[in-house]
Amino acid sequence: MTSKKYAIGVDFGTESGRAVLVDVSNGAEIATAVHPYGNGVIDERLPGTDIRLEPDWALQDPNDYIEVFKRTIPAVLQQSGVNPADVIGVGVDFTACTMLPTLKDGMPLCFLLQYRERPHAWIKLWKHHAAQPEANKLNAIAREKGFDFLDRYGGKISSEWFFPKVWQILDEDPEIYAAAERFLEAADWVVWQLTGEEKRNSCTAGYKAIWSKAEGFPAKEFFRALDPRMENIVDEKMTRTIVSLGEKAGGLTAQAAGWTGLKEGTAVAVANVDAHVSVPAATVVDTGKMVMIMGTSICHMVLGKEAKIVPGMCGYTEDGIIPGFIGYEAGQSCVGDHFAWFVENCVPEAYQQQAKARGVDIHQLLEEKAAALKVGESGLLALDWWNGNRSVLVDVDLTGMMLGMTLLTKPEEMYRALIEATAYGTRVIIEAFENNGVPVDQLYATGGLPDKNRLLMQIYADVTGREIRVPAAKQTPAVGSAMFGAVAAGAAAGGYDSIYDASLKMAHLREDVYRPIPENQAVYERLFQEYVLLHDYFGRGPNDVMKRLKALKVEVLEK
Amino acid sequence: MTSKKYAIGVDFGTESGRAVLVDVSNGAEIATAVHPYGNGVIDERLPGTDIRLEPDWALQDPNDYIEVFKRTIPAVLQQSGVNPADVIGVGVDFTACTMLPTLKDGMPLCFLLQYRERPHAWIKLWKHHAAQPEANKLNAIAREKGFDFLDRYGGKISSEWFFPKVWQILDEDPEIYAAAERFLEAADWVVWQLTGEEKRNSCTAGYKAIWSKAEGFPAKEFFRALDPRMENIVDEKMTRTIVSLGEKAGGLTAQAAGWTGLKEGTAVAVANVDAHVSVPAATVVDTGKMVMIMGTSICHMVLGKEAKIVPGMCGYTEDGIIPGFIGYEAGQSCVGDHFAWFVENCVPEAYQQQAKARGVDIHQLLEEKAAALKVGESGLLALDWWNGNRSVLVDVDLTGMMLGMTLLTKPEEMYRALIEATAYGTRVIIEAFENNGVPVDQLYATGGLPDKNRLLMQIYADVTGREIRVPAAKQTPAVGSAMFGAVAAGAAAGGYDSIYDASLKMAHLREDVYRPIPENQAVYERLFQEYVLLHDYFGRGPNDVMKRLKALKVEVLEK
Repeated sequence: MTSKKYAIGVDFGTESGRAVLVDVSNGAEIATAVHPYGNGVIDERLPGTDIRLEPDWALQDPNDYIEVFKRTIPAVLQQSGVNPADVIGVGVDFTACTMLPTLKDGMPLCFLLQYRERPHAWIKLWKHHAAQPEANKLNAIAREKGFDFLDRYGGKISSEWFFPKVWQILDEDPEIYAAAERFLEAADWVVWQLTGEEKRNSCTAGYKAIWSKAEGFPAKEFFRALDPRMENIVDEKMTRTIVSLGEKAGGLTAQAAGWTGLKEGTAVAVANVDAHVSVPAATVVDTGKMVMIMGTSICHMVLGKEAKIVPGMCGYTEDGIIPGFIGYEAGQSCVGDHFAWFVENCVPEAYQQQAKARGVDIHQLLEEKAAALKVGESGLLALDWWNGNRSVLVDVDLTGMMLGMTLLTKPEEMYRALIEATAYGTRVIIEAFENNGVPVDQLYATGGLPDKNRLLMQIYADVTGREIRVPAAKQTPAVGSAMFGAVAAGAAAGGYDSIYDASLKMAHLREDVYRPIPENQAVYERLFQEYVLLHDYFGRGPNDVMKRLKALKVEVLEK
Repeated sequence: MTSKKYAIGVDFGTESGRAVLVDVSNGAEIATAVHPYGNGVIDERLPGTDIRLEPDWALQDPNDYIEVFKRTIPAVLQQSGVNPADVIGVGVDFTACTMLPTLKDGMPLCFLLQYRERPHAWIKLWKHHAAQPEANKLNAIAREKGFDFLDRYGGKISSEWFFPKVWQILDEDPEIYAAAERFLEAADWVVWQLTGEEKRNSCTAGYKAIWSKAEGFPAKEFFRALDPRMENIVDEKMTRTIVSLGEKAGGLTAQAAGWTGLKEGTAVAVANVDAHVSVPAATVVDTGKMVMIMGTSICHMVLGKEAKIVPGMCGYTEDGIIPGFIGYEAGQSCVGDHFAWFVENCVPEAYQQQAKARGVDIHQLLEEKAAALKVGESGLLALDWWNGNRSVLVDVDLTGMMLGMTLLTKPEEMYRALIEATAYGTRVIIEAFENNGVPVDQLYATGGLPDKNRLLMQIYADVTGREIRVPAAKQTPAVGSAMFGAVAAGAAAGGYDSIYDASLKMAHLREDVYRPIPENQAVYERLFQEYVLLHDYFGRGPNDVMKRLKALKVEVLEK
């Protein structure tokens, strides 16, 4: 009789990294450990220096990622008492696009003394927003020269993505650009550190670096048009070899075995992205099912059989989520963030005191009060654009709106209207998919919100008219990464030969399903029509007041 | 050498009455006394009974008004040490339409034991809103039958006004209607109690009872169309004799002299309305000047030489404010109320604590923070319709709107956007006057707000592009009433022969004037254009979403 086998998933977030040790036979989460990054998000000054960063910068320290391996993997081994020989695979997921320049052996430029005080030598975190000028130039050039890859990305490359970030380095510190022998995702870099081999994954390449399985990277002409010095960036500082999700990146090096306490040679999966790795962990390995990662924002993922142009999507990538499928991604830029803003700026003292007196969280109090309202009772309607609109309008200059307030309007009514607005936003995305040939029959919700707010989940079911299921995993991304670790190990080693098999055994759903309530649906149908009318009025050109006000704001502040 | 002469103004508000003893030579406020009504606003049950009132009812007790005379006038005489023989006149102003049924000798029906438990026997306060069905029927009938008096009232008679209230009595308690030998304004009733003579003033008749100097009351056919029993209401239960403002109603009776400590025969002016009496007290006795009574709502008054139809006005009345002029009235239904709503429902605990720590009022804290913002900096724009729109849209079903919010939007930015929205609303009213031949060159502001919020005053000056002056009087309406008292006494008795003369001597302005700041004006010009675009989009038919949401709200609450 063979012993039980385990896999470890390591989920690298914005502030910390987390390892979860998972039972390969059933997906049970046996042990968890978290390590907060020593240098966190670097957005004021470079560590150990007085060098100040510009606004919109956000960097990280690669050493913090190595520390996650060194601390969390030994911790889960110790907690669980599992024999390292029974850990058959490791998978990693990461924020993206989080990228860095290195030497050709993988040495980060920021580790080199001569570059340590150069901000561009460090890791640019996903939310580094200082490459907006480069993103704007890139989009303008691509449109002007007729490069049709923009179609795959809803018509626009974001300032958060790979090439705007690289280009910012070239623009502002060409010496760092020249010194960089490799530019790559931190996701791929940490896998490199574990295996000693540089293997780039198809997910970040596809969603963040304008790569597609069918067409590869954009042509040299495109990069030359950006800047002649970038003409050969792919061949000189990247690679055209992209490895599909579900492949093995390599085995643990002796050094990495030393860091982690795992056995040398343990299988390591190619890297993945936190949102995308959650899809199979939510049991989804087929078409017709949308996975929503619901937190401060929502990332919506759907699998398709054929490549379709869906206007306003963040992107689609063949093999980008599950091998053999087109992975579509859409997003809402402000969901949990709305509620956090509301609580911080709009909830009166009396409510805070009531929450304290009852010993409940203020969100819980608001949810209770909001849940007591009938659908349509508040008379309120909002547009969920406090942080712009990612899908389907792809417009960062849109702003929030609420109407219907009277002197009797209560905070819980506004809170509920904000929740409803985000649900309408999700329905607009679902309809965009369906109207363009990508069916969405069922919803799967993970991330922080589903556990925190049952009212929100019911509203989403009522507004979208679709059942919503919630994965059983406590740490969905880490379990997803462990699943890919088990696939990298393969069935012969006690794992699985495909992510489908792994998902079938290791991913589970909770029993309770959020089902649309027909009488709520009927009222929301009418409210949604009102939302669409305002969405198109303010978002599609009839009245660009939001953009004019934003431009005026910039103008008066610059005076 | 004759001794100094004085007049007393008595201002009847919603919760209390106030007497001010004023020096006739210069308008100086010598003494003030306030008496809160014993029964206040009666909106739950009839005093001394268990008889519950329906929602939207608001009654008062006539005895409370007599108590005001009995308590406040002796108090100001005592405080000042003025010889009652030197008090040459008394003037009174009142809320309107506040009306009651009486016997032909002025005895209120609610004083009679047999009617004491009948709600319709009591005084209906201005904010009694239960006659909406009658107002709706009245407007429909007037439109259908082509009675053009609606033109004088912006196209609609309000449920707050005289005939809807009378009609509600007839509809719901015909016995009280039959027993009523007189229906009249409380303003005229208190003057009757002082003088023993029933004299009805041109202000309330014109603004609240569909009377005009040129045409009198509507024809019998109109009243018969409402209800055949009302056909002869004017001749049977009212009078066609309407006395112009500035006239003497009579002299104090022996009984009233006993109540007040004043001399029998002291001149009493015909009654007036609180807002309207403030116009000459703000020095305004000519055209081109708008007086704004700024409190929970704003009442805008302008004098004109000719009768013009200004769409969306509350009404115009010849001799309705100052004899010899057309008095125009417009209004915004929600101004101070907006800010009160905001503070109660939207200001976070941290701000309340900051205000407490600094020992300042929360409005003051918000004003300070809002004042630090540049015009246009917030990126916000609101429609000031939390309580519907009185002028110029005359639509109670419109609701509030705000747009431009981002995750960085702060409470003081929203507070300032609400102030700005009310200023844009005032500018729309000013433009409606000017576009229809009634010039508005300068603004005069009184009421509670001008003293409380300098930022608000500056914003109004900047948005309207007009200078704003503030009367020096501490109690503007009461001083205005005292001025009319001095006019009732006449020059021969040491008073004045006209309200012009009285205003010239007794009304004063503060030295500081709010003047538009050109650079603010320029930005507000652009913001106002955005306001107008949204005002018309939501208010004039292109998108009736606010009304549909309100209708849906009623529908779901009735389920």
